[in-house]
Amino acid sequence: MEYHLEDLPVGTKLRSARRVTVTRDRLLAFAEEFDPQPAHLGDEQAAASHFGVLCASGWHTAAISMRLMVETMPVPGGGIGAGIEALNWLRPVLPGDSLGIEVEVLDSRASRSRPDKGIVRFRMTTLNQDEQPVQVLTAHVLVPRRQGDA
Amino acid sequence: MEYHLEDLPVGTKLRSARRVTVTRDRLLAFAEEFDPQPAHLGDEQAAASHFGVLCASGWHTAAISMRLMVETMPVPGGGIGAGIEALNWLRPVLPGDSLGIEVEVLDSRASRSRPDKGIVRFRMTTLNQDEQPVQVLTAHVLVPRRQGDA
Repeated sequence: MEYHLEDLPVGTKLRSARRVTVTRDRLLAFAEEFDPQPAHLGDEQAAASHFGVLCASGWHTAAISMRLMVETMPVPGGGIGAGIEALNWLRPVLPGDSLGIEVEVLDSRASRSRPDKGIVRFRMTTLNQDEQPVQVLTAHVLVPRRQGDA
Repeated sequence: MEYHLEDLPVGTKLRSARRVTVTRDRLLAFAEEFDPQPAHLGDEQAAASHFGVLCASGWHTAAISMRLMVETMPVPGGGIGAGIEALNWLRPVLPGDSLGIEVEVLDSRASRSRPDKGIVRFRMTTLNQDEQPVQVLTAHVLVPRRQGDA
């Protein structure tokens, strides 16, 4: 199933069908490339950091969450990011954690400037295997309207 | 140089010493792993997408920007993300684009709950090689106070 605006009224809740496990190797490689700070680079450096333990870059968590979003709420032609209004990391993501997402539609309306599109405002919560939230994102995405189909 | 709160008064402006070039191969691999949508997966699929041309996942741009942030405003022990209040992608990032960042401190104050830390609110603008902004992030980061040093 692909989602048009009409499939996403306010209050719609979706949940990812699978979880993504954050392996230690991938966590370290992501940090090496994109976020080389002590908490993300290895056990010894992390032990002396604020978190006290090796944990994933928040941007790694965000990227995994995007992957799950694409699978959970696929949009014809791809969703078009129309602005993020909040992104918060609530808990460290540890090596071996398995992440899933929940999406809730907060607002859903036709676009004034683009009659073939709608704007969906949503909150995506990323949860670990213990159902603890690790990240919350609130954002807008442009999606096609069904009547806009050829 | 590493930055403490006292080094980051309101109005401080920093600029990355280098740019990161987004190669086509890395762009495609990032999208395959984290954001498999038509605009990011290949020329043909992208041609039919909203953007009409292959472009990087916004999360790839965000991750590269984080890398540049770590280099541009290094913080003793690593900065602790304390919430993102806005993240917007303004222009597509194309294969071969070279990204740099500008950081401006918007607010800078001691933490009430943690006397050894301060909170810096900043805006980071990611620019391509033509000095066009491609991303703007506004966020808070916890940084150590100099008087908090042992």
